[in-house]
Amino acid sequence: MIEVGIVGGTGYTGAELLRIFAQHPAARVRVLTSRQEAGKRADALFPHLRGSTDLVFSAPDEAALAQCQTVFFATPHGTAMQSAPALLKQGAKVIDLSADFRLKDAALFKQWYQHEHSAPGLLKQAVYGLPEINRAALKTAQLVAAPGCYPTSVQLGFLPLLEQKLLVPGSLIADCKSGVSGAGRELKQSSLFSEAAESFKAYGVGGHRHQPEIEQGLTTIAGAPVALTFVPHLVPMNRGIHATLYAKLNKPGIDLQALYEKRFAGEAFVDVLPPGAHPDTRSVRGSNRCQIAVHHRGDTVIVLAVIDNLVKGAAGQAVQCFNLMFGLEETSGLTPTALWP
Amino acid sequence: MIEVGIVGGTGYTGAELLRIFAQHPAARVRVLTSRQEAGKRADALFPHLRGSTDLVFSAPDEAALAQCQTVFFATPHGTAMQSAPALLKQGAKVIDLSADFRLKDAALFKQWYQHEHSAPGLLKQAVYGLPEINRAALKTAQLVAAPGCYPTSVQLGFLPLLEQKLLVPGSLIADCKSGVSGAGRELKQSSLFSEAAESFKAYGVGGHRHQPEIEQGLTTIAGAPVALTFVPHLVPMNRGIHATLYAKLNKPGIDLQALYEKRFAGEAFVDVLPPGAHPDTRSVRGSNRCQIAVHHRGDTVIVLAVIDNLVKGAAGQAVQCFNLMFGLEETSGLTPTALWP
Amino acid sequence: MIEVGIVGGTGYTGAELLRIFAQHPAARVRVLTSRQEAGKRADALFPHLRGSTDLVFSAPDEAALAQCQTVFFATPHGTAMQSAPALLKQGAKVIDLSADFRLKDAALFKQWYQHEHSAPGLLKQAVYGLPEINRAALKTAQLVAAPGCYPTSVQLGFLPLLEQKLLVPGSLIADCKSGVSGAGRELKQSSLFSEAAESFKAYGVGGHRHQPEIEQGLTTIAGAPVALTFVPHLVPMNRGIHATLYAKLNKPGIDLQALYEKRFAGEAFVDVLPPGAHPDTRSVRGSNRCQIAVHHRGDTVIVLAVIDNLVKGAAGQAVQCFNLMFGLEETSGLTPTALWP
Amino acid sequence: MIEVGIVGGTGYTGAELLRIFAQHPAARVRVLTSRQEAGKRADALFPHLRGSTDLVFSAPDEAALAQCQTVFFATPHGTAMQSAPALLKQGAKVIDLSADFRLKDAALFKQWYQHEHSAPGLLKQAVYGLPEINRAALKTAQLVAAPGCYPTSVQLGFLPLLEQKLLVPGSLIADCKSGVSGAGRELKQSSLFSEAAESFKAYGVGGHRHQPEIEQGLTTIAGAPVALTFVPHLVPMNRGIHATLYAKLNKPGIDLQALYEKRFAGEAFVDVLPPGAHPDTRSVRGSNRCQIAVHHRGDTVIVLAVIDNLVKGAAGQAVQCFNLMFGLEETSGLTPTALWP
Repeated sequence: MIEVGIVGGTGYTGAELLRIFAQHPAARVRVLTSRQEAGKRADALFPHLRGSTDLVFSAPDEAALAQCQTVFFATPHGTAMQSAPALLKQGAKVIDLSADFRLKDAALFKQWYQHEHSAPGLLKQAVYGLPEINRAALKTAQLVAAPGCYPTSVQLGFLPLLEQKLLVPGSLIADCKSGVSGAGRELKQSSLFSEAAESFKAYGVGGHRHQPEIEQGLTTIAGAPVALTFVPHLVPMNRGIHATLYAKLNKPGIDLQALYEKRFAGEAFVDVLPPGAHPDTRSVRGSNRCQIAVHHRGDTVIVLAVIDNLVKGAAGQAVQCFNLMFGLEETSGLTPTALWP
Repeated sequence: MIEVGIVGGTGYTGAELLRIFAQHPAARVRVLTSRQEAGKRADALFPHLRGSTDLVFSAPDEAALAQCQTVFFATPHGTAMQSAPALLKQGAKVIDLSADFRLKDAALFKQWYQHEHSAPGLLKQAVYGLPEINRAALKTAQLVAAPGCYPTSVQLGFLPLLEQKLLVPGSLIADCKSGVSGAGRELKQSSLFSEAAESFKAYGVGGHRHQPEIEQGLTTIAGAPVALTFVPHLVPMNRGIHATLYAKLNKPGIDLQALYEKRFAGEAFVDVLPPGAHPDTRSVRGSNRCQIAVHHRGDTVIVLAVIDNLVKGAAGQAVQCFNLMFGLEETSGLTPTALWP
Repeated sequence: MIEVGIVGGTGYTGAELLRIFAQHPAARVRVLTSRQEAGKRADALFPHLRGSTDLVFSAPDEAALAQCQTVFFATPHGTAMQSAPALLKQGAKVIDLSADFRLKDAALFKQWYQHEHSAPGLLKQAVYGLPEINRAALKTAQLVAAPGCYPTSVQLGFLPLLEQKLLVPGSLIADCKSGVSGAGRELKQSSLFSEAAESFKAYGVGGHRHQPEIEQGLTTIAGAPVALTFVPHLVPMNRGIHATLYAKLNKPGIDLQALYEKRFAGEAFVDVLPPGAHPDTRSVRGSNRCQIAVHHRGDTVIVLAVIDNLVKGAAGQAVQCFNLMFGLEETSGLTPTALWP
Repeated sequence: MIEVGIVGGTGYTGAELLRIFAQHPAARVRVLTSRQEAGKRADALFPHLRGSTDLVFSAPDEAALAQCQTVFFATPHGTAMQSAPALLKQGAKVIDLSADFRLKDAALFKQWYQHEHSAPGLLKQAVYGLPEINRAALKTAQLVAAPGCYPTSVQLGFLPLLEQKLLVPGSLIADCKSGVSGAGRELKQSSLFSEAAESFKAYGVGGHRHQPEIEQGLTTIAGAPVALTFVPHLVPMNRGIHATLYAKLNKPGIDLQALYEKRFAGEAFVDVLPPGAHPDTRSVRGSNRCQIAVHHRGDTVIVLAVIDNLVKGAAGQAVQCFNLMFGLEETSGLTPTALWP
């Protein structure tokens, strides 16, 4: 069994890693850290895992973590960059679910996160953990930056069109909607039940931290600078992201359905729905799958893409990367099936 | 007291009319019809109205309705067009909350509703019930077509920009989200709790009946044909519409905030929020108000507009029209205040 | 206009007081305090009140408050007891929505709230603000302790049976369910959307602070000690309490329906539903009304009682008391009608 | 691979059987019937199963079903009783998830279901599918009546107390709360999102069909007639049942925690929580587990039991029975882990 460590296992992403590894055939969690909960059993915090784990939270300890073959960081930004250099030096692989290694430009990181990057030298080495784009690089990666949830849905949705250079520059819009677990488990007023239930709103129209990550990714895919209008919204549900993507096509008569089916043929976790379909987030709840439908009206293409923000948008995708890094079946421990309804 | 009739009072819109008239200072409901519930007290169906109404459902009866000064139709399409001609002839005013008199073109109606229009001669006479645009005409109207919920939010949102001809043709997108009560009280699988809760999805991307209504309205405002990309979505909440509107500006340097504030100054039911704001649907729940925020990024304008689909998007706006038609205070019986949280 | 002050106006109860007073015909809020938000407009925090209020939060200031004819405390426990003595001395009436003056026994207060009572001398003078029981006393009260939300529903539900001494001692059970706004607006993990949505649980089975308040109230009603088994639960909704009450009847053949209808005849805010009914919380949402149905099976009586925890369970009932204290119509500013659905 | 048939695979229970069998190591679904959807692929109805199944709905056909080793009925009551006799005769085992074989008394069935039982001769043979009680009998069963959702939670909750004859007769109360999927996928007004969301209510206080099933089960456990006060409630969530059980203990000093832990030691799917715990339904969502906490106050015992109504309350428990009937690992295809949050 491959042994892994999880730093910061008390949030939704950490809990999801525990749930996935509880059923992973080739790996087990050896170290689980939390400064606050050190000494407490994991299943005392997470009764849904009773019987699946005997793990006890420990205070973060570099030596213990370095004995794991891989360390996952499910922490706020700023933590992984502190620990990763030493862990890598000692031979552990690192998979960071925070934003620390997503942006290639340390200045851009500072601009959006108000935080000086302490390990800018690792930014180049870090592989962006979107297997559908970076599969080869992930197989040999030592340091992986797992993508954000919005960026996963937007990049997968635009991927075939940008690769084929079919979009009019300046025309891309991503109107995205997320369940509340996307805001994490921190105590914020806007995450309270009575603030979010029976309501719907946009947020961050003036600028959201996922914007530079998405634009960097789209630019890489297109091989040319891509600008995006990105508006995130909060949906009164726990899990799920729905990206509604708009763009102008630069030529007529493209068979969009064929384009998408061909591009994602063989992908275990991207499922192109039949023509005319409308994916719903509940059909991927608990699943590592992205379901996509592509529509158009005249020269406007409309892509609908759904993921579970905690799985394909976070912990599941991180494990998918992990599987690739260790030569395992890419789908190990991950299920395409969703819990419905 | 002005006496009104309500045809089809068993759905959400009918119930909302009853609730509003229960507190209206100058009008009372005299006749309330429902074929199915005839003989039953209204508050037996609607316990939230106990003590506010003694009305008993009666079978539809033209003579009884004609004695009312105004008849509201809260029925599926196809009903109002049958009864309106005779009621109008007998001197009653008609306010139709269905789609029967919204489209000016009977052929377009047939195309979208698969229903031959039986009173095409009234289409020209019908006044579209958006007071912020048609206030003068509403004051003398005999027949009012109350707008759909999506069309209300989209037209109010684009209004100042289109009036001033500031938008690039072909660039308008309306990404709209609605609570489930917008689907009405009919028994449809997609309206079941376990289908809609903890989920989010788009629908009708291939074509939605509100599209021609919105385009007709935007065209009237702009004085030139306006095409729109319109995608509706279903939100797991009861009430509320959030329209996220995108368009390209045709010139730089416009003071959007001033434009919106000036256009809606004096409007009791359109509230332009301060710069940078993000309206949420709960802040207009139960209110007849539309709250709007206007943002931009470069040459892309982003308008966020929220309404309660059953109030400003249906019953409340119909009563606002009624108030105008009878020379009452436009705000009679309507409150801007919302039930929060 | 009677001028009132509100201390602690940033939570759900404070906001609800503002909403109610915005439509109160005989009173207006003159002073609104919040240490944290001093200097900020109330409608900046509460966009649903834009246009209904020009109030600005001020730091708590005894002199300013004392100029109000009544001061409402919508604060956590421990605050009102500090300020009430001086305010009362200066002639202001005090209506406390916290727990400070609910329990008549300072030792019991200390036991349940871990807080030494600083004004025990006022406990006797304080009138418990349940108008259906204490109407006469409220008319001359200077200091009112507005009841908790659970206690309101349980006391109203058991009231007719206990007054008539129809229950077997030791048999009373209150299985109560509350929406999440009942937990207030404080930042607590259990109040997060992703903790409470799509879930249901009991809490406080080992002891809840409303238990001694309820038992004190039931004991007063019965004129003899009443013990209660009380289990509160958390429902994934914003507003509403549903009390399911069980007890053994001490004699057969009681006409329960008649008993309840007679006891509550003339009460504007208690509505006894027809035999066989099942009240739902949405039918009193936003309303100051308690709807009750009474059932029995053999010698077991089952009472179902619903209220809106923020209205009849807090702010609405406090205003009902206020109306009585100032000789106003008891229903001023309050509506029985609910926002449905 | 053991081949199974599913009759009536279009509802929530049928879909859940498909989901479970998609990951079952020793069985596969061979025949899936639906009169309405015959000819349509299962994953066209259930996009969450795309890639997990190639099944196509077929019209019910006894011959095809008889070739399966087991046939599951996920149908409304009245269907299984028609087909079971012939299937059993041909050697197929039958697991009925409807109510047809739950009650041992055909007259009682008729009283509660208004339906003459067409196969009363099978009632005695049918084994009630609660493995924690009937494990031995299930191993050799040909016909299994899978328990209802409420009955599962109530019987497991009272089990240790009744087996040990520790309860005062006449004191048992089950205040139960269910998510909306418990009402099935039929089109009923009360199951609409806008009827159930943001609301809570009791129903069936005058009599619910699960009452005789529960009383029969409790009576069997106790070895003496047991009467129960049972009140079901509807919770605005998809999945989950929370049973709050009350009873009087007939003697003092019982170590309830030890009693429960001992009784359920070794049970894979009953998890007794530590003293003082409050189980929540989300911690068993998607899991086949019942989590239980036992409390007491004086002589009143309070048991809190949660299950997922579609898993341990329906499809999961049916598969647990199936595993026993075929000598498989009892946990095959079933997971204790829940999807959280």
